[in-house]
Amino acid sequence: MPGLQKKWLSAALVGAAAISSLSVAPVSAEETENKTSAKNVIMLVMDGSSDNVSTIARWYKGESLALDNILTGAVRTYSAESAITDSAPAGTALATGNKSNSGYVGVLPSLVTTPGVEAVAQEDAFKPVANVLEGAKKSGRATGIVSTSEIQHATPAAFSSHVKSRSNYDDIAEQQVFQNIDVVLGGGSDPLNKSRKDGDDLLTVIEEKEYDYVTTRDELLSSDSNKIWGSFAPKALAYELDREKTNPEQPSLAEMTGKAIDTLSKDQDGFFLMVEGSKIDWAAHANDPIGMVTDFLEFDEAVAEALEFAEKDGETLVIAVTDHGNSGITIGNTNTDSTYDTTPVSAYIDPLKEATMTVEGALSLLKEDKSNLAEVAASYGLKDLTADELQALQTSEDVGTTLVKLLSTRANIGFTTGGHTGDDVFLYSFGPSRPTGLVDNTDLALTMAGAMGFNLDNLTQTLFVDAKAEFEKLGFTTQIDTTNENNPVFVAKNNDRTIIIPENRNTVTIQNGDSNGNTRQFDSVAVYNDEKFFISEEMLNFAKQ
Amino acid sequence: MPGLQKKWLSAALVGAAAISSLSVAPVSAEETENKTSAKNVIMLVMDGSSDNVSTIARWYKGESLALDNILTGAVRTYSAESAITDSAPAGTALATGNKSNSGYVGVLPSLVTTPGVEAVAQEDAFKPVANVLEGAKKSGRATGIVSTSEIQHATPAAFSSHVKSRSNYDDIAEQQVFQNIDVVLGGGSDPLNKSRKDGDDLLTVIEEKEYDYVTTRDELLSSDSNKIWGSFAPKALAYELDREKTNPEQPSLAEMTGKAIDTLSKDQDGFFLMVEGSKIDWAAHANDPIGMVTDFLEFDEAVAEALEFAEKDGETLVIAVTDHGNSGITIGNTNTDSTYDTTPVSAYIDPLKEATMTVEGALSLLKEDKSNLAEVAASYGLKDLTADELQALQTSEDVGTTLVKLLSTRANIGFTTGGHTGDDVFLYSFGPSRPTGLVDNTDLALTMAGAMGFNLDNLTQTLFVDAKAEFEKLGFTTQIDTTNENNPVFVAKNNDRTIIIPENRNTVTIQNGDSNGNTRQFDSVAVYNDEKFFISEEMLNFAKQ
Repeated sequence: MPGLQKKWLSAALVGAAAISSLSVAPVSAEETENKTSAKNVIMLVMDGSSDNVSTIARWYKGESLALDNILTGAVRTYSAESAITDSAPAGTALATGNKSNSGYVGVLPSLVTTPGVEAVAQEDAFKPVANVLEGAKKSGRATGIVSTSEIQHATPAAFSSHVKSRSNYDDIAEQQVFQNIDVVLGGGSDPLNKSRKDGDDLLTVIEEKEYDYVTTRDELLSSDSNKIWGSFAPKALAYELDREKTNPEQPSLAEMTGKAIDTLSKDQDGFFLMVEGSKIDWAAHANDPIGMVTDFLEFDEAVAEALEFAEKDGETLVIAVTDHGNSGITIGNTNTDSTYDTTPVSAYIDPLKEATMTVEGALSLLKEDKSNLAEVAASYGLKDLTADELQALQTSEDVGTTLVKLLSTRANIGFTTGGHTGDDVFLYSFGPSRPTGLVDNTDLALTMAGAMGFNLDNLTQTLFVDAKAEFEKLGFTTQIDTTNENNPVFVAKNNDRTIIIPENRNTVTIQNGDSNGNTRQFDSVAVYNDEKFFISEEMLNFAKQ
Repeated sequence: MPGLQKKWLSAALVGAAAISSLSVAPVSAEETENKTSAKNVIMLVMDGSSDNVSTIARWYKGESLALDNILTGAVRTYSAESAITDSAPAGTALATGNKSNSGYVGVLPSLVTTPGVEAVAQEDAFKPVANVLEGAKKSGRATGIVSTSEIQHATPAAFSSHVKSRSNYDDIAEQQVFQNIDVVLGGGSDPLNKSRKDGDDLLTVIEEKEYDYVTTRDELLSSDSNKIWGSFAPKALAYELDREKTNPEQPSLAEMTGKAIDTLSKDQDGFFLMVEGSKIDWAAHANDPIGMVTDFLEFDEAVAEALEFAEKDGETLVIAVTDHGNSGITIGNTNTDSTYDTTPVSAYIDPLKEATMTVEGALSLLKEDKSNLAEVAASYGLKDLTADELQALQTSEDVGTTLVKLLSTRANIGFTTGGHTGDDVFLYSFGPSRPTGLVDNTDLALTMAGAMGFNLDNLTQTLFVDAKAEFEKLGFTTQIDTTNENNPVFVAKNNDRTIIIPENRNTVTIQNGDSNGNTRQFDSVAVYNDEKFFISEEMLNFAKQ
């Protein structure tokens, strides 16, 4: 309509921050006025759960979800290089407020192609950026991370480490152990000692740091320590639907969340807790609807734990969100092209209710000769197989793929991909400073930091200074000692004084002449990105004293 | 976690209203306190637009959407009989606050199977229920309906009529014409006279009722009448992307919306306006991504018109929502199963940008001998066809289906179905009493009615009393005269007095003895559902005077 001014339409995408602040403004005006600080922040991430999952899960449960009570907006999830994000840059956005690249954990991107995302100077690529857990710790709060995946997986890693590649579990695990996080609960005991290239035994470090190291549900629930490291599986934990059958010694996500809150809330200065329902995403990649729904419902129970605490407490900000869509799951598929309008809820839910295990759980029962195929299919809800269904399974080269297709067909559930999707996702929030409206995933980090009273950019400057540049300014000669290729060490020398700072750790050692040296521990870790070595201002100040 | 009380989890689904009030409560507590009445209400429905559409449309546009500024929650869309709703019961829910059945427009359901939906007594099946437009009119407000479909289509019909079947355009058109709506803009001139079984000429009625009847964009924009009936096509209007090429005489949705607001806002008592972007849904059924995106963006311009007015006015509630998901469209498909994390925005958007027409528009160019297939494909964005693509088109039995598949493949966009989907959808709202959080589609009708100061249940009792029962109580004998089968008439007789009330009209005629009778017009219509005849209390009081 020429001549009419359209202020809504003229807002060019001049940067992600600009978009978000624009888009949030009208909705949250009154919220903003009411903003108060949050003593505690609980961030719950349901990995890879497109919006349809909540709808299906609600019908499956037959009752309202905890999440239903706190739906307040939506979140944009794209990365610096893609419309559809990987979990590592998604976690980095949620934890640090920075868009990044596929696989990058807690570091800046090297490639920015997404319209509206501000370019990053070439020399800043891979630079570590501070996360909200580090800020919470620095503000005196207790901190915790919880996941059903190995705790080194992308999302928890983004809240506790800085590495160029999410697959570098060795470095992630080492940084986590030396981060002085109070509560760490999840899978992933292998990267603590068994699968490490450097041969280090981080379990010993965990004990030295006086964690109560627990490996079972019972040990966890009976612990009364203020510092708990729970590692309940070599890799990921079981899906909730399978857990009591295959791994009854493991805690549920809600149990881990409840215990983490109980433990962290003893700190008078408040706490920050990140909780991830990790395997909704994995079930989505497998297009396994029952795995998605049941792990989503367990995540919802974790949210209920958080809300129960937050409601009583009154000073706790709770944010729940998925990091991205996955699988394009829908209620309705090609079966319902022309019958959707008269197809009852039961036609979608009853077939799912038949399943007593996820496809992962069902496949774990499959004998090598596949002689128990019908039994395996039945545990996945596929009872009374038709001749066609049985034949499809018997001739399948990938039984898992065939199982999920058969169940989805019975349940009239559609999928578009085995990968992530680029949809804006629901935002759930409760408590002081809760975000509302359409926001960017990076906004959530800024909101949490603001609620806890710190600035992430300032924190990055405090935690990650360029060691080489700073020490050379002071007249030191520096080198990265890669004698042990798996454990590079930053070394700075000046006259008789030698400074030794190993990567991924929180220590600085000063040697004067031939002394054994003076080693001090800090509350943050040194990060080496294969080019530069970053240390905190505190480390620098100690070293140059 | 046994022993811990979980109040969130114990809320049984005891009825749709219960679900919604529960789910809304914590989020909207402070909103509720701030509730004020709305002089004006503008309800905008983007038919069949799943959440992914807004994400794709934003990338396509390269700027924020008007909708981005007012995202406040989500909406459950199921019908009384299905997890996935048809547009007729969806419109009925939004307009009247009642869940209904497939095809039912403004009447109660005869079949309730959805868990949590309250049963409807058998004798109440098909009973008409009042809508927010009728309530607005009764409160003295001006009223309007706008759509890009024929105005008799399900969604506008649900805000202006009461029929058992959405396909009964004859009855819908007649009720609309006799509803005394101030502004009616859209397609659908055929059901006004040309395609009517009863041979009535509703155009004459429109003129008698002193509408400015307009049929072109220019006529519409230059009209200064307070009553405008614009009918710009025999059936639906063109898609926005095609309009200037195929139907330049038609107004855009934003133009119709702007004109409707300009006209209705002259009423000092306020107004209610319903606007539908109808054909996003049709493009979704066709799995035509460019039709979806461009009609969605035109809808967003209509929202911008509404918001521009509402921001200045300060007393206008704006709600925008889709009535249901459709097509399971996603950013990402099987092409991106393993490459999604590094696929830039341009890979999805650039192929769409090539299209200069929707698939409907492109097909309208196709010659009978298909000799211009490459040219048609090019207008749909499929330039430089590969040998495989060309062959697929040349051997296709359904060129439209092949075109949309080829474009979606190029654009890495996935679909799960050609039908609707059952996902909760984004809620957009602005202004006094705006709804927030997770709500039911029926809640939106209640919110609008509440903001305008009336109660829909009471209104239903006022507008739809059982004529036979009431007149028989008064000693009349009654019958439905179906001498003219397409125009049944309710007749009540008592001594010398005969009451004549035709269906779908707003008139009551009283004949005393052999007089010609005294006919009076009312502000609502009589509705016959093939079993019972419903008239307003005003009609009844006039007849029995």
